[in-house]
Amino acid sequence: MTKSPVRIAITGGAGQIAYSLVFRIAAGEMLGPEQPVILHLLEMPSAMEALKGVVMELDDCAYPLLQGIVMTDDANIAFTDVDYALLVGAMPRGPGMERSDLLKTNATTFKTQGQALNAHANHNVKILVVGNPANTNAYIAMHSAPDLNHKNFSAMTRLDHNRAVAQLAAKTGVDVNSVHNLAIWGNHSAIQYPDITHAIINGVKATTMVKPSWILDDFIPTVQQRGSMVIKARGKSSAASAAYAIISHMRDWVMGTDEWVSAAIMSNGDYGITEGLIYSFPVTVKDGEFSIVQDLEINDFSRTRMLANQQELEQERDMVAHLLN
Amino acid sequence: MTKSPVRIAITGGAGQIAYSLVFRIAAGEMLGPEQPVILHLLEMPSAMEALKGVVMELDDCAYPLLQGIVMTDDANIAFTDVDYALLVGAMPRGPGMERSDLLKTNATTFKTQGQALNAHANHNVKILVVGNPANTNAYIAMHSAPDLNHKNFSAMTRLDHNRAVAQLAAKTGVDVNSVHNLAIWGNHSAIQYPDITHAIINGVKATTMVKPSWILDDFIPTVQQRGSMVIKARGKSSAASAAYAIISHMRDWVMGTDEWVSAAIMSNGDYGITEGLIYSFPVTVKDGEFSIVQDLEINDFSRTRMLANQQELEQERDMVAHLLN
Repeated sequence: MTKSPVRIAITGGAGQIAYSLVFRIAAGEMLGPEQPVILHLLEMPSAMEALKGVVMELDDCAYPLLQGIVMTDDANIAFTDVDYALLVGAMPRGPGMERSDLLKTNATTFKTQGQALNAHANHNVKILVVGNPANTNAYIAMHSAPDLNHKNFSAMTRLDHNRAVAQLAAKTGVDVNSVHNLAIWGNHSAIQYPDITHAIINGVKATTMVKPSWILDDFIPTVQQRGSMVIKARGKSSAASAAYAIISHMRDWVMGTDEWVSAAIMSNGDYGITEGLIYSFPVTVKDGEFSIVQDLEINDFSRTRMLANQQELEQERDMVAHLLN
Repeated sequence: MTKSPVRIAITGGAGQIAYSLVFRIAAGEMLGPEQPVILHLLEMPSAMEALKGVVMELDDCAYPLLQGIVMTDDANIAFTDVDYALLVGAMPRGPGMERSDLLKTNATTFKTQGQALNAHANHNVKILVVGNPANTNAYIAMHSAPDLNHKNFSAMTRLDHNRAVAQLAAKTGVDVNSVHNLAIWGNHSAIQYPDITHAIINGVKATTMVKPSWILDDFIPTVQQRGSMVIKARGKSSAASAAYAIISHMRDWVMGTDEWVSAAIMSNGDYGITEGLIYSFPVTVKDGEFSIVQDLEINDFSRTRMLANQQELEQERDMVAHLLN
C-alpha cells in the first residue's frame, strides 16, 4: 500500500446517516480499495459518548485502509487538512418549527463550518452538503469560505436522482441500468423537479413509454414525497440509501462519469437560473469537475417547475443574507 | 452482466444488523461487483411494515446488481432456492431472562429455519448463524437439516477475531495488516478464548512483544467484553461492525483465504474438541471449504480455556437436545 492517506471529514458523526456511511468509506467503497483514509468525525459535545461507540466499532472492523480517526466537537480541528468534507449533520426540523427557523438555526452551523473549511482545509477540498436545507446550507458555507473555489462546493440531490431512476425503471419494467439521461432540477425540497423529458430507456424516449398523467400525478409526487414515505414505513428517516447516494456522488466526483447524474452546484446562469444559487442540474464529471449537461431543450412544463425551484432558493438565500455580512 | 443472480436469505431483515448489511450486499461488497443478487428478507409479522421501509430504501439506491427482493414472514418462502443464508435474527435476552430461557426460545426458531433450509434451499447453500447463542443455534439448525452437509453450516466469531486483531495492533503500535495467525477458540460467548500464542507481527512472535499480564488481565477480557462496552458507549449493540464481519466471513468462505481467520464450524474431534459441537477454530479457506489450521502446539493455558468453552457448548447442546428428536 503506497498511496498516502487522504483525510475525510464527516459531520454528524454519531448520527444515523453517518452510521451507514463511515464504515463503507473505511472499507474503501468511496475512493477505492487502494486509497488509505483518515476519518475526521465531528459531533456536538452532547453526542461525543455515542461517537466514541462508533469509533470503537470502526476499530473493531480492523479495516486495512483505515489509517486513523480524529474525533472532535471543534470544526477547526475537524477540517484541518481535509481533502473531502461531507457535511451530513444538521438540526432536524422540530415540532412547530417554521422552515425559516430551521434555516436560521442551521445557517449558523454552516457559516461556522464554512469559515473553518476556509481556514484549515486543503484548498482542493471537495465539499458535499447533505444536511438540510442542503442547497442553502451549501450556499452559506460557500459564502463563508471566500478563499475556496466555488467549484469545491456541492449539495446532494443524488438520492432523489436514484429514487427517480428506480421509479421509472419499475414503471417501465426494465432494469435500473437501462435508464439514462434523467435529471433532478432545483432544490432538494418538496418542490424539486425530477425530469424525464430527456430520459432514454434502451434507446427509446421514456416519455413515449409512460402517460403524461403518470408523470404528473404519480412519478413527480412520489419522488418528491419519498423521504416522508420511508419515515412512515420505517419510523426513521432514510439513512442507508442516503449514505449510498453520498458514496456515489463523491465517487463520481473523484473518478468521473459520462453518465448523467444530478448534483446541486453553483449556477453560472446556465439555463437562465439565477447566478450564484446552489441549484441541482444534470451533470457529468471529468477530471474532478462537474459539468452541467448543455443545450437541452426545456419545454414549458419543465420551465415552470425549474423557475419555482429558483424562486424557492432565492427566498432561502434572502432569509439568510443578513448572516453572511 | 452475464452471471446469473444468486439468492441470499437474511433473517431479521428489519433489524439493526441487517440494516447495516443488506445495502452492502446489494452493492456487491460480499460477492463482488460482477455478481447479481436477489435478496430474501425474512422477518416476524410484527416487523413487516419496518421491513417494507428497508425495501423502499433498497429500491431507492437503484443498485445495478440487485435483481430482486423477496419479503416474507415465512421461512419456507424465505429459504426457497437460496445459495446463501445469513441467520442474523434472534430474540435478544430480555430483562430477568435466564440464558437457558433464551436458548430454548431461539432453539424453536432455528429448528424451524433448519427444517425450511433442508426442504427448500439449494443443497450447496452456505449458512452463517449470527443470532445468539450463535454456536448452538447453528447446531440446532444443522441437526434440523439432515439432508444438508454439516460443512454448509457455520457460526460467526469473525467479529471477535477482528476485535482481537485491532486490540493487539493498537497495543503493539502496528497496522492491523501486520497482525497474523491469531485465533478465536470455542463459543461466541463471554468465555470465548482469543489466542495470541501463535500470532506473528511483522515476523516476530506477538507473545515476545507484550507481557503475559496484559494478555490475561487486559487483552482477553477486553475482547470478551467488547460487545458490552460498545452498548455502553453507543446505547445500542454492535451492528455495523457485525455486518462487516458477516461480509468478511462470507466473502472469505466463497473466495478463499490463506490468512488465518476464525469461524465456528463442526468439530470432527480436532484438537480433542468433542465431535459434533459447533466450535470456533482458526481456519483457512480453499475451494469454498473451511480447513482447520492443523498441528498447533496447545499450551496448558490455552488448553484450559479451550476446554471451558467445550464444556459450555456441551451444556448448551444438552439443554436443547430434547427439541431435536
